[in-house]
Amino acid sequence: MAARAAAGRHHLDGNALRTERTRSRVLAASLALFNERGEAHVGTGAIAEALGMSPGNLYYHFPNKDAIVEHLFRRFEERVDVAPAAPESPVAAVENLWLYLHLMLEAIWDYRFLYRNLDDLLERSPRLRSRFVRILDRKQETVVSLCDGLVRSGAMRARPDEIRALGHNVLVVSTYWLNFQSVRGLDAASAPAAMGQGAYHVMALVAPYLAGAARRHLDRLSRSYIE
Amino acid sequence: MAARAAAGRHHLDGNALRTERTRSRVLAASLALFNERGEAHVGTGAIAEALGMSPGNLYYHFPNKDAIVEHLFRRFEERVDVAPAAPESPVAAVENLWLYLHLMLEAIWDYRFLYRNLDDLLERSPRLRSRFVRILDRKQETVVSLCDGLVRSGAMRARPDEIRALGHNVLVVSTYWLNFQSVRGLDAASAPAAMGQGAYHVMALVAPYLAGAARRHLDRLSRSYIE
Repeated sequence: MAARAAAGRHHLDGNALRTERTRSRVLAASLALFNERGEAHVGTGAIAEALGMSPGNLYYHFPNKDAIVEHLFRRFEERVDVAPAAPESPVAAVENLWLYLHLMLEAIWDYRFLYRNLDDLLERSPRLRSRFVRILDRKQETVVSLCDGLVRSGAMRARPDEIRALGHNVLVVSTYWLNFQSVRGLDAASAPAAMGQGAYHVMALVAPYLAGAARRHLDRLSRSYIE
Repeated sequence: MAARAAAGRHHLDGNALRTERTRSRVLAASLALFNERGEAHVGTGAIAEALGMSPGNLYYHFPNKDAIVEHLFRRFEERVDVAPAAPESPVAAVENLWLYLHLMLEAIWDYRFLYRNLDDLLERSPRLRSRFVRILDRKQETVVSLCDGLVRSGAMRARPDEIRALGHNVLVVSTYWLNFQSVRGLDAASAPAAMGQGAYHVMALVAPYLAGAARRHLDRLSRSYIE
């Protein structure tokens, strides 16, 4: 237990630090190449070359490309495993949700290779599939419980079946918004605007169910967004 | 002109008929293989083999795989180039839209290989990209003009900015619904139910803006759907 706790504090000697640093560099270079060319078109050879590293050295750190994909997926998972804070007021709930959507869309953009050939990736790895399904399930729960809270506070008027359908639609639009935009071409220059549009469109799904101050606040935010 | 008109009537001699039949068989076999394995994993060799045809004979009909993909895309394009009929009443508008969504989801299922690696396909072919964008633009126009009609008849209450956002959301959910479902695994047995859920969820996007008889009719249809 003591050893474990010490490990938890990340006391690393020089060698371990160098190893960590190399692994981080491999992951960053792989992510950039996967996003740029599509994961299917990038082999470990190209990753080693981009880093000026021998294939043998790369192999020492990651036995194959799937191991790299899995590590990147874990980072993505950690990044999206957040939920908007319990709101102090309906107006704060609207603000929190909008910010939260921005965070999610930024994570999807940063790891866009995952979404580019999602079916292929998940077919190759049942483990990634079950983890991806878990991410979606937790997001669905997050949206539903947020809506339930808004209904209790009187800021939302929606039946349970409406909230369930709304949750699925929020998930589909936020998950695939950037894919939808990339049909028209999407690059680093146009991505921030596309993410803003994504958050706006997801909020538009919620808007008709909001009432009172929450609705007025969202209408105000939306107007300033589209003007 | 006379020759053209005659050609339009498809007077084909025995050889031309055989050629047409072979081309149809190639397209059907390619579509099945692309859908099953993903287009990137199927070469012309596998297509020829599935048909018991020599690679040379396949080449005589289609110079390469991209030509096959393009022909399949044209068939998909023709299939989705429909719009719901101008409704006689708000209740008919709701019925037409629901049926139309089923048709669209069935077309997407039948040509699902296009949606599986859409980015890769469109990156390889700027021509496919501009045609795919045109499909999306026409769908957006269809939804917006349908909504405008409902607003004029008093069956819908929505501002122009709400209708624009609704159109985009209808497009994203209907385009990516089957991708979203395939994260959890989707096969020929579960596809019909998934298409039904897709139509239901798209209708749920429209529901909050409907009023009067149209809203009551949609609520009735939805209840019988989820019960």
